[in-house]
Amino acid sequence: MSKYIQAPVSPFVISTEITISEFLKGMAKTAFQGKNLGIAADIWSEMLKENTTILLGLAGAMVPAGMRKVIVYLIENRMIDCLVSTGANLFHDLHESLGNFHYQGTDQVNDIELWEEGIDRIYDVFAKDSEFIKTDEFIINFLERLEQNRAYNTREYFFLLGKMLLEIYREEGILTSAAKTNLPIYCPAIGDSSFGLALGTQQNVKKRGILFDIIKDVVEINQIVTSRNVSGMIMVAGGTPKNFIQQAKLLNSILDKKLSTGYKYAIQITTDSPHWGGLSGCTFEEGQSWGKINQQAEKVTVYCDATIALPILVTAVAERNKDILKKRIKPTFILGEELKIL
Amino acid sequence: MSKYIQAPVSPFVISTEITISEFLKGMAKTAFQGKNLGIAADIWSEMLKENTTILLGLAGAMVPAGMRKVIVYLIENRMIDCLVSTGANLFHDLHESLGNFHYQGTDQVNDIELWEEGIDRIYDVFAKDSEFIKTDEFIINFLERLEQNRAYNTREYFFLLGKMLLEIYREEGILTSAAKTNLPIYCPAIGDSSFGLALGTQQNVKKRGILFDIIKDVVEINQIVTSRNVSGMIMVAGGTPKNFIQQAKLLNSILDKKLSTGYKYAIQITTDSPHWGGLSGCTFEEGQSWGKINQQAEKVTVYCDATIALPILVTAVAERNKDILKKRIKPTFILGEELKIL
Amino acid sequence: MSKYIQAPVSPFVISTEITISEFLKGMAKTAFQGKNLGIAADIWSEMLKENTTILLGLAGAMVPAGMRKVIVYLIENRMIDCLVSTGANLFHDLHESLGNFHYQGTDQVNDIELWEEGIDRIYDVFAKDSEFIKTDEFIINFLERLEQNRAYNTREYFFLLGKMLLEIYREEGILTSAAKTNLPIYCPAIGDSSFGLALGTQQNVKKRGILFDIIKDVVEINQIVTSRNVSGMIMVAGGTPKNFIQQAKLLNSILDKKLSTGYKYAIQITTDSPHWGGLSGCTFEEGQSWGKINQQAEKVTVYCDATIALPILVTAVAERNKDILKKRIKPTFILGEELKIL
Amino acid sequence: MSKYIQAPVSPFVISTEITISEFLKGMAKTAFQGKNLGIAADIWSEMLKENTTILLGLAGAMVPAGMRKVIVYLIENRMIDCLVSTGANLFHDLHESLGNFHYQGTDQVNDIELWEEGIDRIYDVFAKDSEFIKTDEFIINFLERLEQNRAYNTREYFFLLGKMLLEIYREEGILTSAAKTNLPIYCPAIGDSSFGLALGTQQNVKKRGILFDIIKDVVEINQIVTSRNVSGMIMVAGGTPKNFIQQAKLLNSILDKKLSTGYKYAIQITTDSPHWGGLSGCTFEEGQSWGKINQQAEKVTVYCDATIALPILVTAVAERNKDILKKRIKPTFILGEELKIL
Repeated sequence: MSKYIQAPVSPFVISTEITISEFLKGMAKTAFQGKNLGIAADIWSEMLKENTTILLGLAGAMVPAGMRKVIVYLIENRMIDCLVSTGANLFHDLHESLGNFHYQGTDQVNDIELWEEGIDRIYDVFAKDSEFIKTDEFIINFLERLEQNRAYNTREYFFLLGKMLLEIYREEGILTSAAKTNLPIYCPAIGDSSFGLALGTQQNVKKRGILFDIIKDVVEINQIVTSRNVSGMIMVAGGTPKNFIQQAKLLNSILDKKLSTGYKYAIQITTDSPHWGGLSGCTFEEGQSWGKINQQAEKVTVYCDATIALPILVTAVAERNKDILKKRIKPTFILGEELKIL
Repeated sequence: MSKYIQAPVSPFVISTEITISEFLKGMAKTAFQGKNLGIAADIWSEMLKENTTILLGLAGAMVPAGMRKVIVYLIENRMIDCLVSTGANLFHDLHESLGNFHYQGTDQVNDIELWEEGIDRIYDVFAKDSEFIKTDEFIINFLERLEQNRAYNTREYFFLLGKMLLEIYREEGILTSAAKTNLPIYCPAIGDSSFGLALGTQQNVKKRGILFDIIKDVVEINQIVTSRNVSGMIMVAGGTPKNFIQQAKLLNSILDKKLSTGYKYAIQITTDSPHWGGLSGCTFEEGQSWGKINQQAEKVTVYCDATIALPILVTAVAERNKDILKKRIKPTFILGEELKIL
Repeated sequence: MSKYIQAPVSPFVISTEITISEFLKGMAKTAFQGKNLGIAADIWSEMLKENTTILLGLAGAMVPAGMRKVIVYLIENRMIDCLVSTGANLFHDLHESLGNFHYQGTDQVNDIELWEEGIDRIYDVFAKDSEFIKTDEFIINFLERLEQNRAYNTREYFFLLGKMLLEIYREEGILTSAAKTNLPIYCPAIGDSSFGLALGTQQNVKKRGILFDIIKDVVEINQIVTSRNVSGMIMVAGGTPKNFIQQAKLLNSILDKKLSTGYKYAIQITTDSPHWGGLSGCTFEEGQSWGKINQQAEKVTVYCDATIALPILVTAVAERNKDILKKRIKPTFILGEELKIL
Repeated sequence: MSKYIQAPVSPFVISTEITISEFLKGMAKTAFQGKNLGIAADIWSEMLKENTTILLGLAGAMVPAGMRKVIVYLIENRMIDCLVSTGANLFHDLHESLGNFHYQGTDQVNDIELWEEGIDRIYDVFAKDSEFIKTDEFIINFLERLEQNRAYNTREYFFLLGKMLLEIYREEGILTSAAKTNLPIYCPAIGDSSFGLALGTQQNVKKRGILFDIIKDVVEINQIVTSRNVSGMIMVAGGTPKNFIQQAKLLNSILDKKLSTGYKYAIQITTDSPHWGGLSGCTFEEGQSWGKINQQAEKVTVYCDATIALPILVTAVAERNKDILKKRIKPTFILGEELKIL
């Protein structure tokens, strides 16, 4: 018997009584991306069992697409320990925290008409441009609450923004739940978002500016991944969060001039493909050559839109690890001085 | 208020107590492909409520990937009325009916080594070449059970094959459950599969051949879609089943020289994209221009690997329509004379 | 020095004086799909140098998209020896041979309006439905030119159709140039196309039918690939042609119960991805596990829309092999009795 | 005659005598992505004819893949006026300027072995980890050449780095040719790259840091796009450059509280798809709803790997516009004080 012949594919049997965790257990015995989604639930569960520092990368327009509360759930139930996000997702979170909405729309639409009506489209999501501008103004006004003579890194900025939101707004979002639970958020490309844009309008008119210490982000994320022996990453799409989280493992290898040993656990949900050669679509095997991913890592790539894969995965992992989540120990990393809003 | 601004995106809230049907109800209120998967469950439910003749197209290596029992469930619970499949899926169904397995494997493997060990790979599924050859021989031997002096269309062939399997084998597969419930199966490209290959070996050595009347398939599928006022289609991937089911609507327009009016309901699960211009990835909107899809059709495209989307969708639709399924009326189409195995 | 470190990537240098063959030589020294396209030109050239029997698989709506004359060029200059096509490409070729056109359109259009105006859309190509129906009628009338009491395989059918077109029409298309040069064309899923549809209308009204001997196609294509020691395949997209050409290599292994040794040369241009698990997107490495592709094969996959990759590739290969093409020897395979049109 | 029926698709005719510009002229008369590539050459030519400020977005691992000299050509021949890039492309450019190479490799490889041999993989490109660390050290040492008590924006940083390279190294790269011709380069996510990593090691050990004024980047790019009446953008893949360039058009609309009117010309080469909902894959139509793209814009999306599409496009546009390029007027924008290296 060949060593390659082991467990048979076990055809998935439909049951209307099944829980989502059981569903993914069944999937793990099949093949293709259904199997990979099942394996992702197993790996995330492994991470939670071991004292793993878990980093979540969040790209793609996940918040406009209704994934905001899924991320909030991850933060509140400490299923992750650190969030690295595009600016857009944090902007849209702020936008909803301020009481605004995104709207169900369609991609089969005349965009010139939308423009004339002041509606911005994100694939099949609509939003009111005038409301976005109010959120921009909120960001501008928040400048007043920051010290003028210091640079902030993005974690500090979003922590303070979340804290301020907590004072005023009840609605629980990503920024607020992260501030409440002291979970660090990084945004490596904050300039490339409505935050950058809103802040740019102020610097433009010479009123008031802000300096982001983005290299401090790099330093801190390295502290986070080295704070415990075991670290894992979960990537929702690629973009800057994927590289930023992965490269955190390489910083020490530059200092020490030796090969990095990488993350022990790695999950990615992506719609990109390896053969285009970009970082967003690259495999974890490629990451292993760099030392971003450990040679013995448990890893899986799920090729799927995250609006399908993520809520299923989170539901299953939460269901399966209720007891573990209650007593899960936070990693302890001290990321700098006391922060306050003016 | 703009006409474009209606229901807000309702952020999906994680609950570990949720059923899969409820899960998709939540998804339908979000965006992107998660929303589309939710809508697909709604449309399929609509089809079942109305007396719709439902055709399922099955492409991609769904059976090796563990989706065989999902299709069986659809047949046994009459969630579909007709199946159009690639030859491969039917061959792999037969293979498992004969007591063979597909095996969980990996795409990170040396294929030369697999070849040396006689293992055939289908992405991350392995199978034994020697077992496939036994299934080929079964197909060859089955020739003896057919009449020599008549042509069979693919429905007749697979009906007889299923009936014969029912006599001997207990294991419930696609062919057997379809034969048992008299659900027609078509295979427009039967030559392009291991059926064609196995049958080709016989014609090659001049022993015994078989003529498939593939134009009769075209005629019959048209009878099926015109047997009731309302018809719907569900496409798992594209390939020949997608076009074959869609073109069934055009036959009358050639005869009558008028525009076709198309399917009333249409769901497709695909990983292909419209911008490559092929039929597999084309939108239902494009289908509307041809009259394959009705101008008022309820339709949705879910861009997702079917090994994820299909079992979720089937579970939700089954859960949501238990009562309807019990009393659903089969369409009555008479597709020709009595068939028997020699 | 590691064995992995060999030739550096040689940055491509822009020159406005470059020929397309030189362009691809430069590309072959780079990376990603540009490199693969460059390698494809090298492999095709190798095929032509050796006495290789070359099979071309043609899927996707290549003819409506303006690739018809590219295929004609391949036939007339004997850059291929056999064509396996979807029915659609052959139908659209016939359609243009009859003096009709496809039109430049757009995918940003209201398809309901197109339907109302009788215009069928293929992504960004428009066509007149009424003209398609005339081509359907031509196919119906051509039935009169065929013998009633015999089955035709698809090669025979398209050879006769091409011959008849040559009698009447000047315009050089795929069917006509293939008939003229006696290049065999196979169409494994002829029922799944407008040929099937048109022929279905006749069988429907019991006027006159046609039986396609599709298993004979399987037998003949095996004769073709075994007619010389060396065989190669070029796949434009996937679909039935890809499997049909590949499986031709497996027929002997069923008869002889030994492992197949596969094609020596293999090029595919595809926009599908391996990770969806389907045959259209599968790698040639996967094909090696089955024995469809030889263990020492020269092979390359170019992930690209064929409307970009194919004309570049053909231009470069033609330019580079002018002398070889003049004296290239056709493979000699005798595929059955004399055919004639009534 | 329907208004939808205009120019027929003109089948592309192979000629071995054709130039690449003529090739694309032929392509523009076909369909699918071949047509779009042809149209891209037309639009870029239009941009050059009008006094358009042209911004190029560069994402994906284009420099390791051999596209470095293509970008250099664009800079030296003033086919673009501003470059927005990922950090990676600029790092790999620096790496080659320092005399290092990227190597042709393969994705069919054991990555654990690569790691053991100190080789980093980028799809089918290999590089020596030890050489990357030397480039990291170069970046660290370059800190000494910068003023300690000021923040730099990324344009200033890369201008100085390019100038310093010009002093020492002969080899013409992106940074050096941009410094020589005073073409501004922005890098919105510089922290998310080996620049960030290298600089992070220093801040980590408290030796010496650098503050990037990333909001100043936002301000300046807005100055650039408003410096002339007409602006156009060319996107190679998506990522931060795509959004950063597009959002530059929105800054004034926040200040003025009115709708933006967007770029007049827009070309994107992408392998992403709209239906995943992310910014990288979104259509220019979606951009029109936001006012990023003008309502009358000439725009085209080419779905293709840029390693194929970009060198063809640049060759054709350069060939077609030789005379125009000679007398093309640079936009005049003054982006701040005199910069010098210590």
